[in-house]
Amino acid sequence: MSITTPPGTAEAGTVSQDELALAARNHGMPLEALAYDVTPVGMHYLLTHYDVPYVDPATWTLEVDGAVERPLSVSLDQVRARTAVTEPVTFECAGNGRALLDPRPISQPWLLEAVGTGSWTGTPLAAMLSEAGIADGAVEVLFTGLDRGVEGDIEQTFQRSLPLEDALRDEVLLAWELNGAPLPPQHGFPLRLVVPGWYGMTNVKWLTRITVLDEPFSGYQNARGYRMRQDPDEEGTPVSRMAVRALMVPPGIPDFATRRRFVDRGEEQLIEGRAWSGEGAIESVEFSADGGATWGRADLSAEAGPHAWRGWSIRWTPSAPGDTEVCCRATDAAGREQPAAPPWNLGGYSNNAVQRVPVTVR
Amino acid sequence: MSITTPPGTAEAGTVSQDELALAARNHGMPLEALAYDVTPVGMHYLLTHYDVPYVDPATWTLEVDGAVERPLSVSLDQVRARTAVTEPVTFECAGNGRALLDPRPISQPWLLEAVGTGSWTGTPLAAMLSEAGIADGAVEVLFTGLDRGVEGDIEQTFQRSLPLEDALRDEVLLAWELNGAPLPPQHGFPLRLVVPGWYGMTNVKWLTRITVLDEPFSGYQNARGYRMRQDPDEEGTPVSRMAVRALMVPPGIPDFATRRRFVDRGEEQLIEGRAWSGEGAIESVEFSADGGATWGRADLSAEAGPHAWRGWSIRWTPSAPGDTEVCCRATDAAGREQPAAPPWNLGGYSNNAVQRVPVTVR
Repeated sequence: MSITTPPGTAEAGTVSQDELALAARNHGMPLEALAYDVTPVGMHYLLTHYDVPYVDPATWTLEVDGAVERPLSVSLDQVRARTAVTEPVTFECAGNGRALLDPRPISQPWLLEAVGTGSWTGTPLAAMLSEAGIADGAVEVLFTGLDRGVEGDIEQTFQRSLPLEDALRDEVLLAWELNGAPLPPQHGFPLRLVVPGWYGMTNVKWLTRITVLDEPFSGYQNARGYRMRQDPDEEGTPVSRMAVRALMVPPGIPDFATRRRFVDRGEEQLIEGRAWSGEGAIESVEFSADGGATWGRADLSAEAGPHAWRGWSIRWTPSAPGDTEVCCRATDAAGREQPAAPPWNLGGYSNNAVQRVPVTVR
Repeated sequence: MSITTPPGTAEAGTVSQDELALAARNHGMPLEALAYDVTPVGMHYLLTHYDVPYVDPATWTLEVDGAVERPLSVSLDQVRARTAVTEPVTFECAGNGRALLDPRPISQPWLLEAVGTGSWTGTPLAAMLSEAGIADGAVEVLFTGLDRGVEGDIEQTFQRSLPLEDALRDEVLLAWELNGAPLPPQHGFPLRLVVPGWYGMTNVKWLTRITVLDEPFSGYQNARGYRMRQDPDEEGTPVSRMAVRALMVPPGIPDFATRRRFVDRGEEQLIEGRAWSGEGAIESVEFSADGGATWGRADLSAEAGPHAWRGWSIRWTPSAPGDTEVCCRATDAAGREQPAAPPWNLGGYSNNAVQRVPVTVR
């Protein structure tokens, strides 16, 4: 690490063996999987903070406790017997794009691929909380998983809280199925929280306890991790909803070692991708074949649901041989756009800079 | 790259942005998944040379041609109507362990996790070749996938050949199911070759053509890639069967950023893992809690099948606080053992050095 980089960061360009160990376990979605409305299991991105726990569904229970009138203890069969909703929901890791920052915050070194859309089946959280009876004075709801490890020198079970009003939104689910099958172990079997529109860390996996709190949670993942700040002494603001972003299936064919793309001059390319935002519906997507100098408007597909990415496409016929960069960018109904250069912060969160794909026209 | 490293290699310790792009798409099996007899989809390792192709099963066909008496063109329904066999088969990438070499061959930077065991359902290849009628003088069988890209400056579709006698072995399958469901796109939908005992590149995905050859195949993946050699001018020998190896579930709990493990002094640990070899059955597995100075013999589980990894376990109660390395190693029926230090070659193949897991006893 250069002595000029802030604590917990390193110069861009190479990653350490420790970061490689994270990249070898965790994985992005190969961007050609943007072709699917719903991401096949195994192509959806995956980030595991500690280890994937081995859970016996016969003895697992979900506890609902804290500031409630009637604490609950619920078996998996009881959860699955509740009202069920199935919905496509796009997840993105808050750290997506981190390894493109300079200096690079040291953590899971994502480039662009930490995204995916699952068809999630679960039961509304609000109804279960209502059954338990939320006590007066409640302010947050804490979600506890079964995964345990050390982070920032603190031994912990993964725990994240949500403000009460966010936890009570209609679209928040306790999910036991992904793409029509029981959750795979790595996606939180037997039950996970699904909070549409928020970054991935919100969707607590291997959920075992829901605790209603009468004061804000001060644990690691809310108070230290997942905060937007420029230096470690700053309190910062919590990471919450996904920033607007478009990604495309890289055109042409790849070079194995560099992933550079090759397309043939005069051969029309159907450029396809997806766009999403946690702040509002996608309003437009633009594409550039000249590194962002000029832009054309893409066609949008029908919406698959209020919390799923939206397909887009545009045709491009490369004319001049040589190297170029193809780019895409989206705008949402909240008026948010994607920046040309990555916004920097200490944790490397929410980098939604315009995607740039190096392409050689032959 | 240091000027002292051979062409195509770099110093150990960091990886480049290009290698990171490979590591972000491809992924290992998190080692805690060694707990499963059959690896859940999405936890099995995955290496894609180019892009995962999008295949329409309605128009896909398998062609059997070349030095045969009766060329065949077979639909997916016709393949699936043939005699079916289901068997657990362990796959390992030939490059597993590559990023632990020094200098490090530049390619997909695997540490230890490029392994998995699938329950594969398919039909014996030998019967289909027999139906086509192998012509006199045939020496090899070439398998062509639908994935296309550039590698070593050569544009190519992924193709690998097998010597005829290996292709005709009983256990070689054309597989359309993994773990009881149609192949996921990333594992070769709709059909892949499964060659038990051989390294992963042999198991050609998105299979579309089988060509019987009357002379050896001289294409990239046999003649240039996947060869054991010390320098680029050497012809070398082909990479084929998996070397003997044991891996363990890392004990205790991890640190997020470094993956270092923590265990508590005096608390008995059940150390569990799997061992496999492409050369013969596993005969013994040993475990060391002191970095390889002393070894104890692990208990072996029953064999799940002739081509699947074998479970093993041993109990360990850490007594002295401080840092140590826990290690494991296996021996197979062919008398092969694992080396203490990695065997080096230019492609970084077949590194089956003893696994070493840094552990802090608290």
